[in-house]
Amino acid sequence: MSEHTLPQVGILMGSDSDWPVMQQAARMFKEFGIAWEARVLSAHRTPDEALDYAAMASERGLKAIIAGAGGAAHLAGVLAAKTLLPVLGVPMQTKSLGGEDSLYSMVQMPKGIPVATFAIGEAGAANAALFVIAMLANEDAELRQKLAEFRQAQSAKVLAIKLPELD
Amino acid sequence: MSEHTLPQVGILMGSDSDWPVMQQAARMFKEFGIAWEARVLSAHRTPDEALDYAAMASERGLKAIIAGAGGAAHLAGVLAAKTLLPVLGVPMQTKSLGGEDSLYSMVQMPKGIPVATFAIGEAGAANAALFVIAMLANEDAELRQKLAEFRQAQSAKVLAIKLPELD
Amino acid sequence: MSEHTLPQVGILMGSDSDWPVMQQAARMFKEFGIAWEARVLSAHRTPDEALDYAAMASERGLKAIIAGAGGAAHLAGVLAAKTLLPVLGVPMQTKSLGGEDSLYSMVQMPKGIPVATFAIGEAGAANAALFVIAMLANEDAELRQKLAEFRQAQSAKVLAIKLPELD
Amino acid sequence: MSEHTLPQVGILMGSDSDWPVMQQAARMFKEFGIAWEARVLSAHRTPDEALDYAAMASERGLKAIIAGAGGAAHLAGVLAAKTLLPVLGVPMQTKSLGGEDSLYSMVQMPKGIPVATFAIGEAGAANAALFVIAMLANEDAELRQKLAEFRQAQSAKVLAIKLPELD
Amino acid sequence: MSEHTLPQVGILMGSDSDWPVMQQAARMFKEFGIAWEARVLSAHRTPDEALDYAAMASERGLKAIIAGAGGAAHLAGVLAAKTLLPVLGVPMQTKSLGGEDSLYSMVQMPKGIPVATFAIGEAGAANAALFVIAMLANEDAELRQKLAEFRQAQSAKVLAIKLPELD
Amino acid sequence: MSEHTLPQVGILMGSDSDWPVMQQAARMFKEFGIAWEARVLSAHRTPDEALDYAAMASERGLKAIIAGAGGAAHLAGVLAAKTLLPVLGVPMQTKSLGGEDSLYSMVQMPKGIPVATFAIGEAGAANAALFVIAMLANEDAELRQKLAEFRQAQSAKVLAIKLPELD
Amino acid sequence: MSEHTLPQVGILMGSDSDWPVMQQAARMFKEFGIAWEARVLSAHRTPDEALDYAAMASERGLKAIIAGAGGAAHLAGVLAAKTLLPVLGVPMQTKSLGGEDSLYSMVQMPKGIPVATFAIGEAGAANAALFVIAMLANEDAELRQKLAEFRQAQSAKVLAIKLPELD
Amino acid sequence: MSEHTLPQVGILMGSDSDWPVMQQAARMFKEFGIAWEARVLSAHRTPDEALDYAAMASERGLKAIIAGAGGAAHLAGVLAAKTLLPVLGVPMQTKSLGGEDSLYSMVQMPKGIPVATFAIGEAGAANAALFVIAMLANEDAELRQKLAEFRQAQSAKVLAIKLPELD
Repeated sequence: MSEHTLPQVGILMGSDSDWPVMQQAARMFKEFGIAWEARVLSAHRTPDEALDYAAMASERGLKAIIAGAGGAAHLAGVLAAKTLLPVLGVPMQTKSLGGEDSLYSMVQMPKGIPVATFAIGEAGAANAALFVIAMLANEDAELRQKLAEFRQAQSAKVLAIKLPELD
Repeated sequence: MSEHTLPQVGILMGSDSDWPVMQQAARMFKEFGIAWEARVLSAHRTPDEALDYAAMASERGLKAIIAGAGGAAHLAGVLAAKTLLPVLGVPMQTKSLGGEDSLYSMVQMPKGIPVATFAIGEAGAANAALFVIAMLANEDAELRQKLAEFRQAQSAKVLAIKLPELD
Repeated sequence: MSEHTLPQVGILMGSDSDWPVMQQAARMFKEFGIAWEARVLSAHRTPDEALDYAAMASERGLKAIIAGAGGAAHLAGVLAAKTLLPVLGVPMQTKSLGGEDSLYSMVQMPKGIPVATFAIGEAGAANAALFVIAMLANEDAELRQKLAEFRQAQSAKVLAIKLPELD
Repeated sequence: MSEHTLPQVGILMGSDSDWPVMQQAARMFKEFGIAWEARVLSAHRTPDEALDYAAMASERGLKAIIAGAGGAAHLAGVLAAKTLLPVLGVPMQTKSLGGEDSLYSMVQMPKGIPVATFAIGEAGAANAALFVIAMLANEDAELRQKLAEFRQAQSAKVLAIKLPELD
Repeated sequence: MSEHTLPQVGILMGSDSDWPVMQQAARMFKEFGIAWEARVLSAHRTPDEALDYAAMASERGLKAIIAGAGGAAHLAGVLAAKTLLPVLGVPMQTKSLGGEDSLYSMVQMPKGIPVATFAIGEAGAANAALFVIAMLANEDAELRQKLAEFRQAQSAKVLAIKLPELD
Repeated sequence: MSEHTLPQVGILMGSDSDWPVMQQAARMFKEFGIAWEARVLSAHRTPDEALDYAAMASERGLKAIIAGAGGAAHLAGVLAAKTLLPVLGVPMQTKSLGGEDSLYSMVQMPKGIPVATFAIGEAGAANAALFVIAMLANEDAELRQKLAEFRQAQSAKVLAIKLPELD
Repeated sequence: MSEHTLPQVGILMGSDSDWPVMQQAARMFKEFGIAWEARVLSAHRTPDEALDYAAMASERGLKAIIAGAGGAAHLAGVLAAKTLLPVLGVPMQTKSLGGEDSLYSMVQMPKGIPVATFAIGEAGAANAALFVIAMLANEDAELRQKLAEFRQAQSAKVLAIKLPELD
Repeated sequence: MSEHTLPQVGILMGSDSDWPVMQQAARMFKEFGIAWEARVLSAHRTPDEALDYAAMASERGLKAIIAGAGGAAHLAGVLAAKTLLPVLGVPMQTKSLGGEDSLYSMVQMPKGIPVATFAIGEAGAANAALFVIAMLANEDAELRQKLAEFRQAQSAKVLAIKLPELD
């Protein structure tokens, strides 16, 4: 399964500087065998392409779009306005305001056009992907099984931790 | 379609004082003909029942859980820890901190257990429901059609607004 | 001079609940004899119409666009992405976060697409209009004279205040 | 006195990355001769084990539980829901929001289930331990004497500081 | 059991305007049959009396002190500096900053002198009392039994809630 | 075109430590062939010179003033009080509060004296310049053409990005 | 002693809507027999008069200036730039941001031009006056005696409070 | 003039880690020939000594006390409660909350006991000293002259700055 398969999920971001964070989503999809694609499209610098992407997403077979953006983080909201697909947002950490700006710009969407928002930064990117996987697992028993195993492995990893002695 | 049908979505809240907000989700489901159920269950005051609800939700046929909570708003995270279903969170406005506390408690989930978070208060409750509808519409052409019509009606309503004259 | 003259400035807002605030801009234009128009257009609920408005604004003879929005306040940024005209933003006060959300969503625009942001609420709406007037006054000696008189009257009004006696 | 003695206090944390902070609590207990144990248990990744720990804590002879967690820091609240023992929370500093998220997620508990919250980071971990020591000292004259001496030594150390000359 | 019995807990507050909030602690103690006393003493306006209260508290038989204060809320910290007893703080909501000021002034105590901090306002006052009760219950089986019953009644009350029909 | 041409825009800043940020504005003007000048003038340390600068700016042929300042960032507001020209503000990032202080000090201007505020730091400096260019382009078809080309190049640059493979 | 005596302290404010707050300073001076004057002068709407006031203040015999302002609260800083007298600032509460904006705009002055800042709102206005009284008392034994008596009366008033019975 | 002369001002701080910041105050006094002393005294770790220092400060000939502290920064307020002298506060930057905690803990003092608060960190320490100098200059023409010269030199230094060429 790779980026070149017919993708089920699009991962968009406003700038390639967001890729180190957003690839956490891609890695999660890779781990679960979900075909994905990633694009840099900006709500502000490439509005037409961003809107076209959203408008065509469903027809192209996507089941969800994950958008990462920082500061006045409009990308997810702008995409959500042009598609009926579920849109998920990942707020980027920012140098000045820590990501509080990105978070508020995403999560405080007005009634009528939802953006599902996740944690600032890498945890948010990974979790947006896991949420999409949970959505898809509603209709895919095998995927649900994989998700159950992922969760069990995750638990086991925590339980296996041995804290070091006090210095 | 009513609360007494086999529900597809559970709407949970930590206190019945959250109902005036959370019923915006219920109303949206009613409008779209999605069977729902609503329960007051607290992560802190009724942890066993909350956890049981989450653990049994998939088996009972639910496709998603929406949880509203305020302050140290743990309900959505606690449910998410015990189910593979998509869990959505609606932060309640709070008297002292305006809901910034509720929002941070929901959205900043650690890597591995996602909670999809929406706006503080009524807009968030309605949008969480719309997001679930978008999820379900991925597998239900009729529902997708209804969602498209909802969106068109929503646009039309904005476009029909006539601003009053200046005083 | 009224809304029915060929307008020089467009005042946009995401919802008619923003009109009590945004009409402060309209009133200022009326006072200065600048033709304006006001529209309710939402970045999220009517994206196509909002984008068309921006794309056509220059051709229609507008010199600037003022956009008021609250919460995840994307309107100004979305318009700015589709026009070369100066775009000014007025963040609305919000019930939960006081308008900090609206402010961050407007002011933290990425490099390349500016939105000139003003104070939260009525002062911001009036000041956005005054800023447009200052822009236009750069090419219009009569308007500049009016602006100078407005400023003098404003100063005189402050200087004429008599504080009441202590109780 | 060591971790292998029958512990009086449990130190829990959501991740081993919290240990450098949380070991400040352990060190304090070691200094005072209070038997402690430390475990990595996550409210989200290992909910059952975390809940079991809380449910069994009193029976196992613990007198208090200290929980450190960051972001949507639910661990302390989740434990508090399943035990009658005093539960103390230490909010971890976070990269994006500095720990304001962790603090709000812990301190804003609803009426009925208390979590005693301490400062963000190392000072909070040490102080949570000192608070437990003060609790235990209510029933242990020798421990109270040690605490008095600790306080005197702490004062003496401050008073002995000599500030360097100005450069 | 009343205020006139030899008290086990002192409830202090910086101003009698804090009493409507702080009496939630008193009511909880009354419900559990714990003798309490309440005093208005200010860290700033009556520092000597506040410090004397703290210095004598243990000798007078108190087991804990709960302090409520708002704004630059120093009372709990000042008391904690002069007693070995556990000191608990309840941040008051403030008109300008919502209580974020009170919370930070209490919770961010430096290493060495702990203040256990609870939620802003009434929930915090009630929970500080419940935390003291949990402390005392460690040495009092009957009190522990009462606390268990309180918790069960609290759970039952949540479970008995019937949400109203949708309008 | 250089700083030595009769300038159209003044770039002011409170300290030369702001220059690495504010030169983003100068670079933008250089790229567009707009003559600019830059000065260090402080609202607090050189109030007379700052006020004189503002008072003479229009007469000297300036069309706009951009002011960068940090902390209690009064420079833009103080200049705006003494000129009819459009004044634009760029809040500097600060070590302690991240620039939230600078932002609030600039954007929250009272009704009557506007300051157009842009993002904290470098993006804000570049965008303030781009906004001035958009203003000037209203009266200068060639500049407007350059701005259109800048925007197209900017879009093209985003569209040309190739994300690296997953590690 | 009244406003008509040769004043020792000037109380300035940016708007007469600040007078209900700032008169707390005037009342304190009246209580202590310190001659004061109050003026509405705006850093932005009447900059020349504000600056003249500051420039002449020392020569007119003032010993200190107290300035109240809200939002982008520049008044105190602007006055401080034009006088060697001590300048004290009182941040006004604001509707949108609660006064956090006013506070940051005052307190975060750059090195070289101090503004002594006090609490947001009425407590701040009263305390700014008390601080001036403490300054003047350094050179006036009688005033110092009055201040000591004020403090004692203040303490006595706190100690005399009787809390009502629990309902 | 040195620390060994009979001091006019006391510089206190809660920890010697505050000295790199607080020595900016000492340096300013040294530059102006004002005798000062510096002490590490903690409101929490050495309350008796801190209170004694305040109680004796006037009698020992001090004219003002400057206190630096971080986090739950009670030192200035605690000193102010025990002296009639002017007390000035300098909030320290903190790792987790940037100093917002220190600032709120100092500036939000209740009516009756003022603390004059300055900027977070080094600028605040220098400015607190400059404020004391302005106070003392009210009664000392020579010092006032020095202050005027300091201000002129400060202005001249700003005006002499030459910005480097654009890269």
